Amino acid sequence: MSEFSSQEKSGLYKAIYTRRDVRSHFNSKPIPNDVLARILNAAHHAPSVGFSQPWNFVLIRNHSTKQKVKESFEQEKTRSSNQIDEPKKEKYLSLKLEGILESDVNVCITYDPTRFGPFVIGRSSIPETGIYSVCCAVQNLWLAARSEEIGVGWVSILSNDALKQVLGLPDHIVPVAYLCLGHVEEFAQKPDLETANWLPRLDLKDVIYFEKWGQTQSPSWDQIHELIQTNLDYAFIK
Amino acid sequence: MSEFSSQEKSGLYKAIYTRRDVRSHFNSKPIPNDVLARILNAAHHAPSVGFSQPWNFVLIRNHSTKQKVKESFEQEKTRSSNQIDEPKKEKYLSLKLEGILESDVNVCITYDPTRFGPFVIGRSSIPETGIYSVCCAVQNLWLAARSEEIGVGWVSILSNDALKQVLGLPDHIVPVAYLCLGHVEEFAQKPDLETANWLPRLDLKDVIYFEKWGQTQSPSWDQIHELIQTNLDYAFIK
Repeated sequence: MSEFSSQEKSGLYKAIYTRRDVRSHFNSKPIPNDVLARILNAAHHAPSVGFSQPWNFVLIRNHSTKQKVKESFEQEKTRSSNQIDEPKKEKYLSLKLEGILESDVNVCITYDPTRFGPFVIGRSSIPETGIYSVCCAVQNLWLAARSEEIGVGWVSILSNDALKQVLGLPDHIVPVAYLCLGHVEEFAQKPDLETANWLPRLDLKDVIYFEKWGQTQSPSWDQIHELIQTNLDYAFIK
Repeated sequence: MSEFSSQEKSGLYKAIYTRRDVRSHFNSKPIPNDVLARILNAAHHAPSVGFSQPWNFVLIRNHSTKQKVKESFEQEKTRSSNQIDEPKKEKYLSLKLEGILESDVNVCITYDPTRFGPFVIGRSSIPETGIYSVCCAVQNLWLAARSEEIGVGWVSILSNDALKQVLGLPDHIVPVAYLCLGHVEEFAQKPDLETANWLPRLDLKDVIYFEKWGQTQSPSWDQIHELIQTNLDYAFIK
């Protein structure tokens, strides 16, 4: 159990590097129950502050619920487009940014700050760590889904107030992620926004500092500095 | 590239199910540079709202920096213990909750709300999604580290103000996670807080609702309801 074989290791990296935020390529094939159960169980085994496991998963297939969420998306998309100037605005409005109706299952993942509370180990100094735990569950779900050939798209152009109303969430429950899950025709090679030349992928070296903020060189870190000069190729993993 | 072999798939699930929040089992063996580079590159390939990649990684090996962070931990641990009554307080104080000095490398992962801003696609309606992206990077790092046999412990009993001062973070930069990385003697079979009987693992069925909040049964979800009656065993994955 302990050491990872090279195939097991490359399975993990493959999920990480080929995971995509899917909006365009969903098809109508239903997700088998056992696959969905495995994906949800992976999410449930995320780390959580003080082992509080503060998440819930609301599974949605009901068309009228999806339709209401989609309406909130449309409203928010229009509203946010007013913050952008042309020609970026036109480009923004032309992008496909969700697959709410096309995907088989929508999942709303929520945060419950009262779970096992009020005292949760490790949450007193930085209360936000409760929500951070839920985000780790989102990422587990996303990677497990990728390995099962299920696409996931996170829709964040939404009103949380609308979500709370549509799903009947109690006041104290925070919706963290609204995810669309489904089979896909293909997984894109690159993130859609990179392909659309909206933003470039940053180099790894540009996001790493040594010992303190802003320090991009350090004698004791010279070797790793060389290694991260460019993004590591996926092939480098093998 | 597209389909996952059963070995690749079980590699991903193995990382998810055997990942631990490590505090007790670090040893002093240094992390090889190529391993650390792969782990960081995995983190950098997390999803991010609007492809904003709003993270930085501050790598720390300097003993005096670690020592200052450890002091903040000690202060916050004492402070938070005053929120608990005996006998839980004594148990809390006896728990090993960090491995700051014993682990080879500490990594502070931060959030930069100005990255590619002010307008970031998908961040207008729910601004917190910027920080959520950074949490997804944390989870990628954690899983990649597990597959490389590197333990990771997230220390959240800390003052973010102290962290900002020690690491020289600019005002607008938010420290999200302070992680301890290092080789370990072993990965524990279960989460420390589960073994210590601090809190139980919830059943998967207890965190899942169908179609709307609070609905634990639904005719159209009967089959999956059966599948999630108990936690899925890791063996079930294979």
